[in-house]
Amino acid sequence: MSWSDAIAAKTEQLTALRRKLHQIAEPGWCEYQTTAAIVSELSELPVTIYTGTDAVESSARMGLPSAEEDAYFFQLAEKAAVEPALLERMQGGHTGAVAVLDTGKPGPDTALRFDIDALPITEASSDHVPADAGFPSKHEGFMHACGHDGHTAIGVELVKLCVENVDQLTGTFTFLFQPAEEGSRGAYAMVKKGWLDGKDYFFSGHIGIHDLEVGTIACGTERFLATTKLDVTFTGVSAHAGVDPAAGKNALLAAASAAIQLQAIPPHRDGITRLNVGKLTAGEGRNIIPERADIMMETRGETNELNAYMEEEARRILTACADMYGVEVSIDVTGRGSTTESSKAIGAKLSTWGEQFTKRVIGPLPLGGSEDAALMMNRVREQNGEAAYLLYGTPLPYGHHHPKFTFDEGVLPAAVEALAQLITTYHEKEGMSR
Amino acid sequence: MSWSDAIAAKTEQLTALRRKLHQIAEPGWCEYQTTAAIVSELSELPVTIYTGTDAVESSARMGLPSAEEDAYFFQLAEKAAVEPALLERMQGGHTGAVAVLDTGKPGPDTALRFDIDALPITEASSDHVPADAGFPSKHEGFMHACGHDGHTAIGVELVKLCVENVDQLTGTFTFLFQPAEEGSRGAYAMVKKGWLDGKDYFFSGHIGIHDLEVGTIACGTERFLATTKLDVTFTGVSAHAGVDPAAGKNALLAAASAAIQLQAIPPHRDGITRLNVGKLTAGEGRNIIPERADIMMETRGETNELNAYMEEEARRILTACADMYGVEVSIDVTGRGSTTESSKAIGAKLSTWGEQFTKRVIGPLPLGGSEDAALMMNRVREQNGEAAYLLYGTPLPYGHHHPKFTFDEGVLPAAVEALAQLITTYHEKEGMSR
Amino acid sequence: MSWSDAIAAKTEQLTALRRKLHQIAEPGWCEYQTTAAIVSELSELPVTIYTGTDAVESSARMGLPSAEEDAYFFQLAEKAAVEPALLERMQGGHTGAVAVLDTGKPGPDTALRFDIDALPITEASSDHVPADAGFPSKHEGFMHACGHDGHTAIGVELVKLCVENVDQLTGTFTFLFQPAEEGSRGAYAMVKKGWLDGKDYFFSGHIGIHDLEVGTIACGTERFLATTKLDVTFTGVSAHAGVDPAAGKNALLAAASAAIQLQAIPPHRDGITRLNVGKLTAGEGRNIIPERADIMMETRGETNELNAYMEEEARRILTACADMYGVEVSIDVTGRGSTTESSKAIGAKLSTWGEQFTKRVIGPLPLGGSEDAALMMNRVREQNGEAAYLLYGTPLPYGHHHPKFTFDEGVLPAAVEALAQLITTYHEKEGMSR
Amino acid sequence: MSWSDAIAAKTEQLTALRRKLHQIAEPGWCEYQTTAAIVSELSELPVTIYTGTDAVESSARMGLPSAEEDAYFFQLAEKAAVEPALLERMQGGHTGAVAVLDTGKPGPDTALRFDIDALPITEASSDHVPADAGFPSKHEGFMHACGHDGHTAIGVELVKLCVENVDQLTGTFTFLFQPAEEGSRGAYAMVKKGWLDGKDYFFSGHIGIHDLEVGTIACGTERFLATTKLDVTFTGVSAHAGVDPAAGKNALLAAASAAIQLQAIPPHRDGITRLNVGKLTAGEGRNIIPERADIMMETRGETNELNAYMEEEARRILTACADMYGVEVSIDVTGRGSTTESSKAIGAKLSTWGEQFTKRVIGPLPLGGSEDAALMMNRVREQNGEAAYLLYGTPLPYGHHHPKFTFDEGVLPAAVEALAQLITTYHEKEGMSR
Repeated sequence: MSWSDAIAAKTEQLTALRRKLHQIAEPGWCEYQTTAAIVSELSELPVTIYTGTDAVESSARMGLPSAEEDAYFFQLAEKAAVEPALLERMQGGHTGAVAVLDTGKPGPDTALRFDIDALPITEASSDHVPADAGFPSKHEGFMHACGHDGHTAIGVELVKLCVENVDQLTGTFTFLFQPAEEGSRGAYAMVKKGWLDGKDYFFSGHIGIHDLEVGTIACGTERFLATTKLDVTFTGVSAHAGVDPAAGKNALLAAASAAIQLQAIPPHRDGITRLNVGKLTAGEGRNIIPERADIMMETRGETNELNAYMEEEARRILTACADMYGVEVSIDVTGRGSTTESSKAIGAKLSTWGEQFTKRVIGPLPLGGSEDAALMMNRVREQNGEAAYLLYGTPLPYGHHHPKFTFDEGVLPAAVEALAQLITTYHEKEGMSR
Repeated sequence: MSWSDAIAAKTEQLTALRRKLHQIAEPGWCEYQTTAAIVSELSELPVTIYTGTDAVESSARMGLPSAEEDAYFFQLAEKAAVEPALLERMQGGHTGAVAVLDTGKPGPDTALRFDIDALPITEASSDHVPADAGFPSKHEGFMHACGHDGHTAIGVELVKLCVENVDQLTGTFTFLFQPAEEGSRGAYAMVKKGWLDGKDYFFSGHIGIHDLEVGTIACGTERFLATTKLDVTFTGVSAHAGVDPAAGKNALLAAASAAIQLQAIPPHRDGITRLNVGKLTAGEGRNIIPERADIMMETRGETNELNAYMEEEARRILTACADMYGVEVSIDVTGRGSTTESSKAIGAKLSTWGEQFTKRVIGPLPLGGSEDAALMMNRVREQNGEAAYLLYGTPLPYGHHHPKFTFDEGVLPAAVEALAQLITTYHEKEGMSR
Repeated sequence: MSWSDAIAAKTEQLTALRRKLHQIAEPGWCEYQTTAAIVSELSELPVTIYTGTDAVESSARMGLPSAEEDAYFFQLAEKAAVEPALLERMQGGHTGAVAVLDTGKPGPDTALRFDIDALPITEASSDHVPADAGFPSKHEGFMHACGHDGHTAIGVELVKLCVENVDQLTGTFTFLFQPAEEGSRGAYAMVKKGWLDGKDYFFSGHIGIHDLEVGTIACGTERFLATTKLDVTFTGVSAHAGVDPAAGKNALLAAASAAIQLQAIPPHRDGITRLNVGKLTAGEGRNIIPERADIMMETRGETNELNAYMEEEARRILTACADMYGVEVSIDVTGRGSTTESSKAIGAKLSTWGEQFTKRVIGPLPLGGSEDAALMMNRVREQNGEAAYLLYGTPLPYGHHHPKFTFDEGVLPAAVEALAQLITTYHEKEGMSR
Repeated sequence: MSWSDAIAAKTEQLTALRRKLHQIAEPGWCEYQTTAAIVSELSELPVTIYTGTDAVESSARMGLPSAEEDAYFFQLAEKAAVEPALLERMQGGHTGAVAVLDTGKPGPDTALRFDIDALPITEASSDHVPADAGFPSKHEGFMHACGHDGHTAIGVELVKLCVENVDQLTGTFTFLFQPAEEGSRGAYAMVKKGWLDGKDYFFSGHIGIHDLEVGTIACGTERFLATTKLDVTFTGVSAHAGVDPAAGKNALLAAASAAIQLQAIPPHRDGITRLNVGKLTAGEGRNIIPERADIMMETRGETNELNAYMEEEARRILTACADMYGVEVSIDVTGRGSTTESSKAIGAKLSTWGEQFTKRVIGPLPLGGSEDAALMMNRVREQNGEAAYLLYGTPLPYGHHHPKFTFDEGVLPAAVEALAQLITTYHEKEGMSR
């Protein structure tokens, strides 16, 4: 059986696994059930599995959730009967898993990365495939709105495919199931654990991003945005809003001013910049001058320099808004992502696949967002490895992070096939049929 | 024993009850334990007690809490072993109580009102009397920061005093323990229940407001601010903040703009106005264009016309801010308070007490805030009754609604004495000793 | 002839003079033609006239106009054939005049003040009495929109009345025709010149303020607002707005932010506060990042403390807005006004006039604005003199500073009569008929 | 003499002419002296010169200056003794000139365009070459801060060069000296006049933009930003800021809010966008609620669609800000510019010049701004002509539109040479030496 046929045979499993994962959407560092599902799929295979602090460097995890949020998802995992020993290993937000396949033959050392976390978005309950087809998120307020459920399914089935065809492969494969991609928080903990050291190749990719036909594969990605994630707290003084408003120091107005004024950072001649105030929570009660306000925000830039420009401007504005209202401000970094480059050599090779490949390979496309994998790619590249980041085409009726985000599940086998092709291009032994 | 001596004898009980209530601070319509404590104190006395839908008109309750908040405090009351029958009567936010004392003798019909709710403020944990003296709020995030624990204690002990001295009194007394004063939400439900119908006199008052010596009593109050409480929701469209920010409609920025722009409503030549955005909650995640934002706000005015001016301006600004960001807005009224007048005749009579009275009575003082009792006062006044609202002096090192708000407990017996004096002035039989 | 009859006989002259002055509306320190008109009216009378640096202390003049504005109005005065010698005395903004009438008899020393300047408002050209009746301002962009044309006419005719009836008066009278009242800029220069030293009485007043019937006189004024006038300049860096916007430092946005954020200074429990950004001029060209922005603003407070609170808050906000955009800011004081009190004793005496007086005298009314005369009143009061500030009733279809501001000219003789009454109350000899 | 030598011989004249023009900096449609200087240089040559309404279509001129500004520069031209007949032809803002050279031989029809206007920027008076070398702008507040003085000199000397070498050229040459490039206002009036009809080639270019060595020539330009220029007026109601602020409708705050809020238009995934509020003038006087506010602003986009997105968003925000303050708003278009493309075929040919050419030709560079020439280029291209836009390298210590903007005058002969090369490439007869 050719790989193409083998992959076609996996279509049903891919869809089933993706739908299962979609229902247990968990945010970053809370992927207890998701990790357990991955481990459960792989545990019978001849791969070595690493979890807990063997998978991630505990102290290098960024942007951990609140104790309440962690406890909430941990309890859900307990109720869902996740195996206690595994759950204990993961306790306190040590989610994610690594599977290593050693072919026993000399050959290159390759890492592949699949991100597994969901987003704090309330999923649409109608006019939306997961809702209509009966596999909506069971976790109110959380949703796989970026396709990581698909990424995880692709990774799991790719491991199986490689195991099944190990005789045709050489070298070793490290499959990274990374937690907390959203917010650029998790890659650092896997890099620090050493998983990207000494790698010859690194492959990853993303479903969607551009609205394309199923089966189209972009052979690389441009415009990875560097990013900084900031948590900002303004602290003022509360007072009775009717009797003595001037006795207060209004943290809510400082934060609201910051949200507005941050928009006025000028665009830069050197390239794309972005800024988002994604969350603002302020005030205690209606008739109280608000004492505290919290902002979750991020900056981005097409280069590390552009992101540094945005972060610097943002810090000045935040401080000035605090001064304006006579309140205190603290600014904490909870995530950082770098820009990177997808290997042009690999891209060029892929773009010649036209005939051999059942899919349509097109030139590199811009990402226009940030990608935690950039940290991994840069680690591989600085050791002279090659790193490529693909885009797996699907029509996108709604954009990423939209409550109705969905994708055509036909993208799943297409992505597995593209990665398999890529692997065999660099690992294949003679006689392997495509 | 004179009333003064009787009151002095109650000082310890007043303090103990206030401290007990301080620890079980509950917000409006969630005063399950507080109501139970009141009922428990009065249940043995020859007064008729009304609770649940006998105390408040269910459909006239404004600004009800979320189902989650209600459930949280209900469960706390269950855990605290509140009598199940009473708890069942109150279920779903039917808190508050009314105690009626009929002297059996002809005489005026008098209502007295004591508000019982706390605020969503996190209490200071040091350099603060309740914390230092061992009676801080046990309900994290909620605090008696406006003295209603004191008001409740004053009301309970006044009932006892009247019962003990019933032979010296005439007519009937209706003691209203009102829930949900904060936000001007609860008085309406008691007025609609008919408790203020046919009353000859109405007395209420407030601890503090002005920084005064203990024992000073202001014989009336001016400048009750009319008020409207608004809940505002902006609804936009979420999108990926890095990849396609222009695809979103930013509800957070609409709300932040509103918070700022509402401050620019011009002051009015006709008198005091106030506006507070007390709470703003917006956004779902850091890298998502925020889809939803909620504001809790209030307007106030020295007259009903001034408050109407503020509300009208605010509504226009809220709508414009929604238009500005292309988002939808909904504006709901969750509370309304009127301006009123404290009886000048009663005030004048009190101000002659100088000699008889152990306390120092001073002229009327401005409130400068809103007071839900205004609705009750206006109901009594429109039926030609008299309504007076006193202020009970205490030093105020911190203002109302401040996390360190506290008062000198000496104000408690002083307030009981002032109310007792007021009652006997209008109800006394011959031979009653002051 | 009684004073009432004498005043009635002056009605036509009052109207004619007021209309003449209305047409030559000149802003503060530019009242060249206005001063010349006053001097011309009084020059034949047995009073001593002071102009130029004899009338105002040159170095104590605040908020001088730009050299261009001064030159513009000076040239207009040259073209209007103002007497060269007088014009030379006034050159460089030494406008205003003082007329002293010495009765030659012992008696009190009284000062009366009339303000003479206009405002930078473009007068309505239709549906407006001055336009329709043929006496609109001839100075495009400038208008008597506060009634100072009427004040000046009242003062001039009062001088004549006093001269004509000097046999019935005692002591001395100092008639101050004050420049630059708007912006609280001119009184200080007359106080510093010593004109208010050793005065027993000071009288002044204002047309309008409240919408009243002609002939109504308020016997005093309350709520003089203390005020500070600030000129603020933000200085940034210009850049090409399309090619390299991030190279600029945007002074316009700093100033616009300040204009908005200054509105958020909380109202104060102790009384009325006001803030106005009256003028904002920023930027050089459409496609240039604005390098410079200028703001003309003012703060006010019901007490000097409240105004100080506003000024301090404003300064902090202005500085923070500069920091926010990385621009420089300079803040200059161009005017300052104090709060004051109108003599209650004089007010009480006036309120007994009911029968003797042809007009209706009512109790004191709030001003609610600032009045440069406060400085003069405070100077007199600190030397134990008495100072009263009246309001002269007129219907007000449009408010002060509105392009359609106008008043009923019947107020002019009523004001003269009120002042005459006031004078004779304190200066009259026996036998004077009212 | 070779062209290179001929050009070298003109270096002194180029510098002298540029310095002369720098001193008479005039804004768009006010280039009376500048046009006269051009005409004076060319009047003796065998070219046909068109001025006034023969050069520009009167009704197609956009963004005309105020009558005051026009009169000011017209009077300056009168004082500078510009020939009366020419001045009369130009009266009312009909500036600019066209020179046509007919070689009398068959050949292509070529247009070249040189923009001649200056900017409303106050020139730096020290640490700035024109100031230090004695040729600063004599027109206070206006400055050649974009190099159009150099462009004009380049055009004039190129005409002379072509005339001198006419025997080596074929076809006809139309030299357009375009007024009012800043604000994208003047090109339309020349296009409408028909000057770009039937042209085979169009050449133009810009000094600077990028910081490059003198002698470097970019063979084309990318990223012409489409643009819309808007004049916005907010009209409210004035009132006395102290006495009755709520009676006003504040146009200044509406405009300031707009300036801030316009910054919050989200960046677009499809490319570069820009928005600048270049000028804001609001208010009448310090103590008056501002009745009127004027904004000069512009939007830009990398494509016409992106600019349309910006304009649409801006219009919605402007309208909402007016609604927010209850004021009226009018929005007028005073300029529009399109995006365009510089001919890739010409660029490719130029990039092969390496050896023949004395200068260094580099690949196309981004403009990143708007260029009024785009309208002309699009007109030529839609008739199947070719249009190229070069960049002439110079070091740029300060950016365009900066008060210290200056360039190395060595760029002038380099630009003339590049254009001469370009012309001869397409017009040369045999035997012409380069």
